[in-house]
Amino acid sequence: MDDIDAYLTAQAGQFESNLCELLKIPSISADTQRHADVRRAAQWVAEQFRGLGLPTETIETSGQPLVYAETPKVAGRPTVLVYGHYDVQPVEPLDEWISPPFEPTKRSGNIYARGATDDKGQMLTHLFAARSWLKTRGQLPVQLKFLIEGEEEVGSQGLYDYLATEGAKAKLTCDVAVISDTSQFGPGQPAITYGLRGIAFFELKVSGPRQDLHSGTFGGAVTNPINTICRLLTSLIDERGRIQVPGFYDDVVALTDRERQQFAALPFTDAAFMQQIGVKGLSGEAGYTTLERRWARPTFDIHGIWGGQQVSKTAIPAKAGAKFSFRLVPKQDPQKVIDQARKYLQQHCPPGVEIEVTARGAPGVVVPLESPYVAAASRAIERGFGKRPVFIREGGSIPIVTNFRQQLGVDTLLLGWGLDDDNTHSPNEKFCLADFHRGIKASAHLWQELAR
Amino acid sequence: MDDIDAYLTAQAGQFESNLCELLKIPSISADTQRHADVRRAAQWVAEQFRGLGLPTETIETSGQPLVYAETPKVAGRPTVLVYGHYDVQPVEPLDEWISPPFEPTKRSGNIYARGATDDKGQMLTHLFAARSWLKTRGQLPVQLKFLIEGEEEVGSQGLYDYLATEGAKAKLTCDVAVISDTSQFGPGQPAITYGLRGIAFFELKVSGPRQDLHSGTFGGAVTNPINTICRLLTSLIDERGRIQVPGFYDDVVALTDRERQQFAALPFTDAAFMQQIGVKGLSGEAGYTTLERRWARPTFDIHGIWGGQQVSKTAIPAKAGAKFSFRLVPKQDPQKVIDQARKYLQQHCPPGVEIEVTARGAPGVVVPLESPYVAAASRAIERGFGKRPVFIREGGSIPIVTNFRQQLGVDTLLLGWGLDDDNTHSPNEKFCLADFHRGIKASAHLWQELAR
Repeated sequence: MDDIDAYLTAQAGQFESNLCELLKIPSISADTQRHADVRRAAQWVAEQFRGLGLPTETIETSGQPLVYAETPKVAGRPTVLVYGHYDVQPVEPLDEWISPPFEPTKRSGNIYARGATDDKGQMLTHLFAARSWLKTRGQLPVQLKFLIEGEEEVGSQGLYDYLATEGAKAKLTCDVAVISDTSQFGPGQPAITYGLRGIAFFELKVSGPRQDLHSGTFGGAVTNPINTICRLLTSLIDERGRIQVPGFYDDVVALTDRERQQFAALPFTDAAFMQQIGVKGLSGEAGYTTLERRWARPTFDIHGIWGGQQVSKTAIPAKAGAKFSFRLVPKQDPQKVIDQARKYLQQHCPPGVEIEVTARGAPGVVVPLESPYVAAASRAIERGFGKRPVFIREGGSIPIVTNFRQQLGVDTLLLGWGLDDDNTHSPNEKFCLADFHRGIKASAHLWQELAR
Repeated sequence: MDDIDAYLTAQAGQFESNLCELLKIPSISADTQRHADVRRAAQWVAEQFRGLGLPTETIETSGQPLVYAETPKVAGRPTVLVYGHYDVQPVEPLDEWISPPFEPTKRSGNIYARGATDDKGQMLTHLFAARSWLKTRGQLPVQLKFLIEGEEEVGSQGLYDYLATEGAKAKLTCDVAVISDTSQFGPGQPAITYGLRGIAFFELKVSGPRQDLHSGTFGGAVTNPINTICRLLTSLIDERGRIQVPGFYDDVVALTDRERQQFAALPFTDAAFMQQIGVKGLSGEAGYTTLERRWARPTFDIHGIWGGQQVSKTAIPAKAGAKFSFRLVPKQDPQKVIDQARKYLQQHCPPGVEIEVTARGAPGVVVPLESPYVAAASRAIERGFGKRPVFIREGGSIPIVTNFRQQLGVDTLLLGWGLDDDNTHSPNEKFCLADFHRGIKASAHLWQELAR
């Protein structure tokens, strides 16, 4: 692998420069005004593959296009599906960004930009690893199928619709999938993520009086939609962090003693974690450690809430709304949770207001640690990062992992090059450039290890 | 009074035209971008008084100016302080207005515009009544002192500061005050309001992690500021409408049997009330009727709440905030309530977030029904409206009434010409033009009745 390792060293500047090209495109899939930019990002990705001489397609969906490219089949070697996404999260609040979100800026060894780590930077490590093989050897030791989507941050509907087609199943036939869209365990400690939480995401709207009413004249008799939404949301969880929806815990798989011991052995302290995020205390479900609560227990978080005016008004507002989610653990069925929660909210709705609940979900997943692909990834990461990975779980949801299992029958290697303080989904998102280059190297070695 | 009554009839069109001039000025005191317009409204009002040949002053304050004008002292007759305000509430949501808020429009006998009833239209009834006396008789039967402010909708700080000065107390010496900024009991049923609720108004901010965090990676361990604000706000009141702050009810005066009987005798039904505001049910403190809850019991309403982004994000937000108030009944001390609530919120604040509470308040008031001024007002209203007024209470707060009692030692006659469905503080505010003219007539007769 000396030839490829040398190429990676020589091309480091070129990789960074290409990364910045993509980071400059404000491909915010949640913002309809940015949809032309989202398409521009798709085109940029497609051009990279075409530039390598790979057969490349831009597959239209109900939303943003999928970019698909593949290298030739290698007889007797596995086919690897590499998934990533070129869309990014919104950037508000803009005034909290030190440098503008779409002007990638290097500071202290990091590249700052929206999408730096989630997922443009991580996704490109695999593209650049493929480029390294093609430029050095003219071919790859395994077949790679790249599937890069543009709606990951808004629910991936176009991709899911596509995956459900027979054509997709034929085209995407593979032995294993690879995704880099998670984090290392910590700086200098790479990890393979073997478990993900699922999600049940809700939007709740509460409508009360026909229009805003003076709270002096009407207060005390009229059911206030904001009072109501606060009470309804609060009723979903108790003060000890236990979700109150009947049946919610029915399918929750308890942590095994082995897992609890493994988690406890990781170099993690609440004090360092609190310092990282800037808080003086933690909270959550009683009876579980912080890592257990983050990785392997369900949660309830309200993401946004609105109602009334920001200016000085003492009205009873006509409406209020909120977005919230439960993070789910493997075996919990999102649709069952959605049905249970909807019923619970309806039952607890007071007279004088009406509620509307919309929801969608994705199940959690656990990948078997015994797979030979996991062993190959472990060796490749050791080559790229100079350190063996630990095996962790992750609290976020990557519904596509479940989809690949259901539609293509394969497991997914979750090889995260990011860090927990990368400010994913927040202002000042960053990606450590050293990790970017280590990730490219680990990926280049992964194709070799998978070919063994 | 035939000469004056004839003048009122002849000038009806002129009064409406003058009203529209003032309604066209977007004098939103809560909006700093509208402060030039607020001043323009003050000038317009001052010019009306100057046009009548009255000595008129524009008194500068820390905020918007007070307009002051007076008629000559009448020996042996009372001096009446007439208070009103020329500022108005914000107009959002703009798209719910049938006609633009600052383009006064007549529909079905009403004039629609922001400030139509609160308080430009009601305030002008007294100015036009004075004009009628001056144009017809050349003088008034009592001395009138007009004090018209421009910060009623944002807390009246400038006025309160001014009232606390010795100069103000000397200038405003009077026997009774008159305010028209409330409602009739219903269409065709005028009322004198003898009780007002007070208010303790709060702004609550909750700060959690340094910045928004991914709810998958961090959820379950981090105290969510929106979850927290919902729980804190919900903890302030129970499901039976009882406020949970210790000591809150200490000074609440129970309704007397006579009052409860009086309220029960009024032509009011829950069914009609529900239809008026467009709801299918009511709620509030258990054990009290709707009118009792609206007029004479304390309440808790959240007026606005914010946190997180409106777009599709699954973050734990760094911050959340809300504005809420307790409506207070007479004898409750707003500062005591503020101190109690602040302590309660601090005690219930979970680890991992910090809260900031700012608050201001005004006490409630009850005016003695035995005063000869009340009798005079009752006769004048009967002349103006053709029907005897009923004696009611009102759930809103007019802190200036307390201020007049404290600083000037006088009671206030609350003579409301509005209606409950005037959409005060909401889109499509209106004032019934027939009530506008009846109000002018009642006011013109009031000066006569007070002179007896």
